[in-house]
Amino acid sequence: MPVLIPDAVRVPADVLPEARAIYVENYLAATRGTGRLMLYACDQKVEHMNDDFFGEGIDRADNDPEHLFRIGSTGVVGVLAGQRGLIAQYAADYPDINYLVKMNSKTHLVKTTQDDPYSAQLYSLEAVLALRDTGVNVVGIGYTIYLGSEYESNMLSEAGELIAEAHAAGLIVVLWIYPRGKAVTDEKDAQLIAGAAGVAVCLGADFVKVNPPKATEQQSSAELLAIASEAAGRTGLVCAGGSTVEAEKFLSQLYDQIHIGGAIGNATGRNIHQRSLAEAVRLTKAISAITLADYSVEKALAVFNGSEDFQFD
Amino acid sequence: MPVLIPDAVRVPADVLPEARAIYVENYLAATRGTGRLMLYACDQKVEHMNDDFFGEGIDRADNDPEHLFRIGSTGVVGVLAGQRGLIAQYAADYPDINYLVKMNSKTHLVKTTQDDPYSAQLYSLEAVLALRDTGVNVVGIGYTIYLGSEYESNMLSEAGELIAEAHAAGLIVVLWIYPRGKAVTDEKDAQLIAGAAGVAVCLGADFVKVNPPKATEQQSSAELLAIASEAAGRTGLVCAGGSTVEAEKFLSQLYDQIHIGGAIGNATGRNIHQRSLAEAVRLTKAISAITLADYSVEKALAVFNGSEDFQFD
Amino acid sequence: MPVLIPDAVRVPADVLPEARAIYVENYLAATRGTGRLMLYACDQKVEHMNDDFFGEGIDRADNDPEHLFRIGSTGVVGVLAGQRGLIAQYAADYPDINYLVKMNSKTHLVKTTQDDPYSAQLYSLEAVLALRDTGVNVVGIGYTIYLGSEYESNMLSEAGELIAEAHAAGLIVVLWIYPRGKAVTDEKDAQLIAGAAGVAVCLGADFVKVNPPKATEQQSSAELLAIASEAAGRTGLVCAGGSTVEAEKFLSQLYDQIHIGGAIGNATGRNIHQRSLAEAVRLTKAISAITLADYSVEKALAVFNGSEDFQFD
Amino acid sequence: MPVLIPDAVRVPADVLPEARAIYVENYLAATRGTGRLMLYACDQKVEHMNDDFFGEGIDRADNDPEHLFRIGSTGVVGVLAGQRGLIAQYAADYPDINYLVKMNSKTHLVKTTQDDPYSAQLYSLEAVLALRDTGVNVVGIGYTIYLGSEYESNMLSEAGELIAEAHAAGLIVVLWIYPRGKAVTDEKDAQLIAGAAGVAVCLGADFVKVNPPKATEQQSSAELLAIASEAAGRTGLVCAGGSTVEAEKFLSQLYDQIHIGGAIGNATGRNIHQRSLAEAVRLTKAISAITLADYSVEKALAVFNGSEDFQFD
Amino acid sequence: MPVLIPDAVRVPADVLPEARAIYVENYLAATRGTGRLMLYACDQKVEHMNDDFFGEGIDRADNDPEHLFRIGSTGVVGVLAGQRGLIAQYAADYPDINYLVKMNSKTHLVKTTQDDPYSAQLYSLEAVLALRDTGVNVVGIGYTIYLGSEYESNMLSEAGELIAEAHAAGLIVVLWIYPRGKAVTDEKDAQLIAGAAGVAVCLGADFVKVNPPKATEQQSSAELLAIASEAAGRTGLVCAGGSTVEAEKFLSQLYDQIHIGGAIGNATGRNIHQRSLAEAVRLTKAISAITLADYSVEKALAVFNGSEDFQFD
Repeated sequence: MPVLIPDAVRVPADVLPEARAIYVENYLAATRGTGRLMLYACDQKVEHMNDDFFGEGIDRADNDPEHLFRIGSTGVVGVLAGQRGLIAQYAADYPDINYLVKMNSKTHLVKTTQDDPYSAQLYSLEAVLALRDTGVNVVGIGYTIYLGSEYESNMLSEAGELIAEAHAAGLIVVLWIYPRGKAVTDEKDAQLIAGAAGVAVCLGADFVKVNPPKATEQQSSAELLAIASEAAGRTGLVCAGGSTVEAEKFLSQLYDQIHIGGAIGNATGRNIHQRSLAEAVRLTKAISAITLADYSVEKALAVFNGSEDFQFD
Repeated sequence: MPVLIPDAVRVPADVLPEARAIYVENYLAATRGTGRLMLYACDQKVEHMNDDFFGEGIDRADNDPEHLFRIGSTGVVGVLAGQRGLIAQYAADYPDINYLVKMNSKTHLVKTTQDDPYSAQLYSLEAVLALRDTGVNVVGIGYTIYLGSEYESNMLSEAGELIAEAHAAGLIVVLWIYPRGKAVTDEKDAQLIAGAAGVAVCLGADFVKVNPPKATEQQSSAELLAIASEAAGRTGLVCAGGSTVEAEKFLSQLYDQIHIGGAIGNATGRNIHQRSLAEAVRLTKAISAITLADYSVEKALAVFNGSEDFQFD
Repeated sequence: MPVLIPDAVRVPADVLPEARAIYVENYLAATRGTGRLMLYACDQKVEHMNDDFFGEGIDRADNDPEHLFRIGSTGVVGVLAGQRGLIAQYAADYPDINYLVKMNSKTHLVKTTQDDPYSAQLYSLEAVLALRDTGVNVVGIGYTIYLGSEYESNMLSEAGELIAEAHAAGLIVVLWIYPRGKAVTDEKDAQLIAGAAGVAVCLGADFVKVNPPKATEQQSSAELLAIASEAAGRTGLVCAGGSTVEAEKFLSQLYDQIHIGGAIGNATGRNIHQRSLAEAVRLTKAISAITLADYSVEKALAVFNGSEDFQFD
Repeated sequence: MPVLIPDAVRVPADVLPEARAIYVENYLAATRGTGRLMLYACDQKVEHMNDDFFGEGIDRADNDPEHLFRIGSTGVVGVLAGQRGLIAQYAADYPDINYLVKMNSKTHLVKTTQDDPYSAQLYSLEAVLALRDTGVNVVGIGYTIYLGSEYESNMLSEAGELIAEAHAAGLIVVLWIYPRGKAVTDEKDAQLIAGAAGVAVCLGADFVKVNPPKATEQQSSAELLAIASEAAGRTGLVCAGGSTVEAEKFLSQLYDQIHIGGAIGNATGRNIHQRSLAEAVRLTKAISAITLADYSVEKALAVFNGSEDFQFD
Repeated sequence: MPVLIPDAVRVPADVLPEARAIYVENYLAATRGTGRLMLYACDQKVEHMNDDFFGEGIDRADNDPEHLFRIGSTGVVGVLAGQRGLIAQYAADYPDINYLVKMNSKTHLVKTTQDDPYSAQLYSLEAVLALRDTGVNVVGIGYTIYLGSEYESNMLSEAGELIAEAHAAGLIVVLWIYPRGKAVTDEKDAQLIAGAAGVAVCLGADFVKVNPPKATEQQSSAELLAIASEAAGRTGLVCAGGSTVEAEKFLSQLYDQIHIGGAIGNATGRNIHQRSLAEAVRLTKAISAITLADYSVEKALAVFNGSEDFQFD
């Protein structure tokens, strides 16, 4: 089981001296003291609108946004990532969750065939710090970059400046980086994803979320991911959970991403919140068991199936 | 009849501590102490120019902008929503109205076939706070977002930052969210409208105004609206009044939106101000009777017909 | 003859308390104590470049920009509207003129067939206030909006913020609003012009300059203008003078615009400055006689012809 | 010979009181006490890249940027106009030159057939004032506007604000105004150039540099220039030197531009710096002899040929 | 061997007096006291993504970003150029390297056939100064300009302002200037590259990195480079290393660029880091031997081959 002591947290040089202690605290909180990140992605109400929250195959409870917080507070997660406003509306009733404020978002209505994607910054970092100052447990921020979009420069600039500001204030930063746009013909190409991971470290992010690369005839997705993890350098790589799949397959993939692919965590949304509260909670525990405590797939499945419990702190 | 005590007002976490009391006061004023919102929409002089104020079927009095304020001060409304300048020109003579400053507007001259819609922010929040400081009874702000427009990112960003600023200063925020643009093929699709409602809570709005969804063979508009209301979470959903319809039909729809659809209010413009002062005043009272005091349609119609009066405070 | 006492000036609520006295002073100065506005438009050296100032049918004196100031100081005008720089170059020698700083301008070189019109803000309000602080008699600002242009949002935003800033500092504001762009098929349509007038009051302008609407078979231009004047509410409507026409026709139109059309003034440029100094001065007096002192057309013509003088103060 | 005493300098009203003395000093320095401007244009290394500095017909010395400063310090010029950075690199060794900082520039690589021209502001006025504060002899700024470009509004706005800021700080301002873009069919049309001159005075520039108009059958270029000079009003008009021509022709044109065309100076670049140091120095003296001391063409030619020297101070 | 004493450093006039000492220190550090610059380019993880760091012909070690720093700290380099974030993540462990923060970057995904290149500024200079203030050894900044791009104006403006800010704070500035875009038909044309060099001095850069010009029938690349070096004036010209070539050829080219072409250094990335640590270190030494100590190609090759060592300080 990975354990991290405060002195072992590597603090980037752009964290101002007066913010180092808070950065270490945030880093340890987000990774539950392990250096591994279980990111619970709750930012899809803008990205996918209600398509991820209501409809066939989705538990009816998921239509109420509070479902996200109920899972987050009952389950075992590292951080709950959501837009500033969403957090502001619910955080008072769920004070123990570690929040990661997603700084940009777009809907899926305009397709890439019509226009390249641009997800714009929605509020200043000052607004996030003000939220933290009112007592909300904000440990970091997130930002999505679509590399290869004709608006790539907008997103690189917003992310670049936000990281400097966030680190200066002791917040950790997670980048979501997806190659996308008319210029991108194969979003899951392993070399491209490794390149995306490398962009993250150049911008100075603490973590980067990428899609798992497409397997080739020679190499599995997890093997290819290992190259991306290495290319990310000191930026920890976490993998996107993707669409809802059967739990065993999901946990097995996650295990391989970490133990073969060098990922130091995961970022999962739909796979969790589209389930009933009880099942979703158990899935967060199973995911965290693998991510934070190096459980085997079999043991994690036992957690998911409820035959074993998993607590962490 | 819904009643709300000050302690029951749920204050979002981004309201700064020093602004909490004023936020609660504004929330109670806007909802007349009920938690329900009767929004009287007076921002159409830009959106629809004079087409909503002069012409066949419109009372001649509506051509004078003061008609809006006469109705607002004599009738029963929660807030009068209008542009900053309009309010600044008349507020001194109508000091008792609760004003909601609409922060953006566009005309209808450029159609979506020519260019996707962008309604730009017209003034800073500082200008609104200055107006409040001179004694005008400003309780909140409003902003329109056209999701699916190629300019969606502009509007999401302006709204995102404005909400942070407004809450910090104790103002309530109402978003108008309409899916619109070349990418949007069915603006009234229920799933799309529920998605729009979800975007509002992610941005942290207190209320969101959406169009009533189109009924399907299986479900009525009000039933479908219930899904959107739930998807809006702690952001209260109110329905757009739409074009002028016969009063009984209008009140009946409103009743269903609230009692079946989970709406906590309405936003009505043309249906009110295109009538004579006396009739318009009675309509505000009938609407408020349903919205604020849970009247039946029949009783509300009696108010509209003048056989019964409705006072509220 | 319209007379206005200081106490009767209606001060918009966004004029800051400390600026109320200066606003009243500026309003009275601009309207010469009558509430009516004789705006002498000297901003066309950018808009029409030299085509309005040199050539067939234009007095040779008009080529020298100082001609504008000679007329303004010798004739009877309410305000001389011009760009900040033009005023800065001549104001020291013409200190008694009331100046209105035109905040935006464009040339006529790019036609609407090539690109929709955008007239951009040329300087900050701070620069205007600095000019006022050096002793120049600046009483207000002006801004042109092309509604229906694809750049409409730029202009609405710049105007919206400028009005807030100008009122806060006690300056009056005049908007020029013209529907123009590929989306506009009939710029002189009466309903459209009434709509433009309504936009002005929503933005909070003190005066709006519109083109006179095109007469229909049923109604004269002045009768249709009356609808626009009413739609402008507390924003006073003034009519554009248009191209140079024979004086009697011009004065007769002006008389009707005021007495039938509800205009509270006029905005005239070419009709004045394209004449010799003496004739131009007499025309300003004739126009002011109608605008400020309710002269009949016949009496005003006598002023223009020099058979009678008109002084005002 | 034109002479100007400090009291005769007409100070624009937007020069702040505390900056009036420095403005007068700068104006006198730039015009060498005459009110006439000999502007030595050294900004073409961006505009024309190396095509103006190296190649057939160009003295080999011109390839080294220091050639520009050697000429400027040895010859007789009013101001040396160049980009901020160029001046910063050489000014310490050429402290006696009056510098005019060119605020915008573009290369000639993108042709008007591909995109309309936009020459963007390259640094803030603060950066220029900081340079002045370190002791560099900066007397003013320059800015180029391409009227009729689809980006005209960008340039009008940048120039408009810069002039206000520069005057406030006591700097003189020279505008370069050229009609250019897809909408402009005849850049040298006399009426168009007179219009450009008029735009300069509306923006409040102290000097405007225009191209000499194309002669017509009825009128010479210099005669037509007289109309533009008058249209420029209190903004002094200077003529662009254009491409390298034979010295006698050049000096003869300049004489006519001043004595017939009403120009109060010239702006010359290539014609000077493409020559050897000695010849270039003599040409600056010949030009200054005409511009600053009303020499005849014949006498100025003697200066250029070295049979007579010309010193000025 | 070139040696520079502190008093011989030519300090641009825009370095503020209080920053002159630090500028001299930075200049000497970056050039290792020689006035020559060995720039080790580590910014390609964004520009070329992982294609420069992983794949056939690239040492496997290059996939880990720390490889860059290991080389930089063990080898002999002037400055290591990289993005702010990359430096922030590793600088604490490699404190002795001189860092040059690359201020802008883009990926290669969108090709010029799709859209002209724009590499946007990624963070403010304040963020860089803050990094310096935490103790990171930041000696300067870098910025890439694509002249001839339709977005040229964006880059010229960002660079123009950054140079002023950086010099004011005592940082040195390196520009990367490449002509590129639909308008550019021959990026390696000698006259064009000389023009690019001239733009750098106009902006006030201390160094400019250009591609070596294409040889003609008459002149070698190095001979043509001499013209560009001269056109750069006081801005030192360094040559891009380009793609990986055989070491002898590379060192021979470098020697000629300096001794024939007038370059005062080099900027090399791929050629170094795509090799194993040991070989890469020896290459930095060989390059530095030529650049900083005027070694012959033969002697430098001995350094590269390990038969001789090269230390410098």
